[in-house]
Amino acid sequence: MKITILTLFPNMFSGIFDESIIKRAIDKKIVEINLIDFRQYSPDKHHHVDDTPCGGGAGMVLRVDILDKAIKENKTDNSHVILMTPQGTKYSQAKAYELSKYEDIVLICGHYEGFDERIRNYVDEEISIGDYVLTGGELGAAVVTDSIVRLLDKAINEESHLDDSFSNGLLEYPQYTRPVEYDGMKVPDVLLNGNHKLINEYRLKESLRKTYLRRKDLLENREFTKEELKLLEKIKKEEN
Amino acid sequence: MKITILTLFPNMFSGIFDESIIKRAIDKKIVEINLIDFRQYSPDKHHHVDDTPCGGGAGMVLRVDILDKAIKENKTDNSHVILMTPQGTKYSQAKAYELSKYEDIVLICGHYEGFDERIRNYVDEEISIGDYVLTGGELGAAVVTDSIVRLLDKAINEESHLDDSFSNGLLEYPQYTRPVEYDGMKVPDVLLNGNHKLINEYRLKESLRKTYLRRKDLLENREFTKEELKLLEKIKKEEN
Repeated sequence: MKITILTLFPNMFSGIFDESIIKRAIDKKIVEINLIDFRQYSPDKHHHVDDTPCGGGAGMVLRVDILDKAIKENKTDNSHVILMTPQGTKYSQAKAYELSKYEDIVLICGHYEGFDERIRNYVDEEISIGDYVLTGGELGAAVVTDSIVRLLDKAINEESHLDDSFSNGLLEYPQYTRPVEYDGMKVPDVLLNGNHKLINEYRLKESLRKTYLRRKDLLENREFTKEELKLLEKIKKEEN
Repeated sequence: MKITILTLFPNMFSGIFDESIIKRAIDKKIVEINLIDFRQYSPDKHHHVDDTPCGGGAGMVLRVDILDKAIKENKTDNSHVILMTPQGTKYSQAKAYELSKYEDIVLICGHYEGFDERIRNYVDEEISIGDYVLTGGELGAAVVTDSIVRLLDKAINEESHLDDSFSNGLLEYPQYTRPVEYDGMKVPDVLLNGNHKLINEYRLKESLRKTYLRRKDLLENREFTKEELKLLEKIKKEEN
């Protein structure tokens, strides 16, 4: 997979892509990440990429002509072009799975106060990583890249993302490790007795309980197995 | 303001905090950011920080004793301690404003498959930046830091974040800059005629229209002025 990031601040990504799982995926050629400083597409000698807003107001606005050129020079026929913006569709684990199937993704990072509205006509999709405002699209592009790369074959242990929060529509069950007792708090007995049937039931129940207590919204449109429904009834009694 | 980040990958932040607005805020001493590698609090000579999950399963789990020690060594009486986790409360612009009032924040980044459940007892709050899974809490901590720092006095132009998406409960109005015509698309006439009353009305209306078309959910619990209600009625007619 190829991920191209169009940004005015390519150095922002240096630390992020030099560590841990993303670095491993790059080294194994599972993913190729290209950072493109789109300032190079400015036609003027001072390399300006923005201008004052039409109609007045604070801040500077990224120019449509420069971004259009940057996109054209860096996309192929297979590219899926994504604009990072707080006005986009909310990013989710389901979207991460969907994007991980593409061969070629182009991520565009705005910066400063905004970009010319007409830029939206040159992209396939607009994505927001959440309802908050950042100094630019760089951290959004990093989030999208990180979430996709960890799903790509072999970047991490296959088994381990089946248990991820959201992957089965629930928050992950509580995890424990040694020390068995710490500061008066003990690991639940069921996790220490080696009975895998009981351990699995405990984990499913606590996964349901967490989701019920913290994120009822995730339960609303979810399909449940009979076992899950029975556990959920128990949980409701225990918690009320 | 002081922000302390507890992480196993302090280098991940090098590029992020060396650019643009965050760097400017650090240089101006508006914010002090401390990156702490909590591996140093491991008591064993190989500096392990994790162990296998009790009850079995894939992956490694961060140990409660080490994180407790790391928190204790790095917090003060004024610290607000936040755990970055997909199971936390959803981060929002309102939360960014709230956090920007603290003097001292400690952000804890998990990594790999998870952390010992008992760690939750040592934090004041758990925050999630969205419903997706990342390789660790580092990008979440970077998002929280970035969104707070840009709100701190003088880090950016005061005026410019009053217009941010979400700050008045709406998506931002469309922005345009030169060229006035590009690829057959023109800047709306109203933005070129210098009539500020009409420009303000256009921007409010288009801000409402964007929110109506893209994020109806943001309109649900919002209080409207009379002018906004009138514009919203017009928009509904125009769009249906």
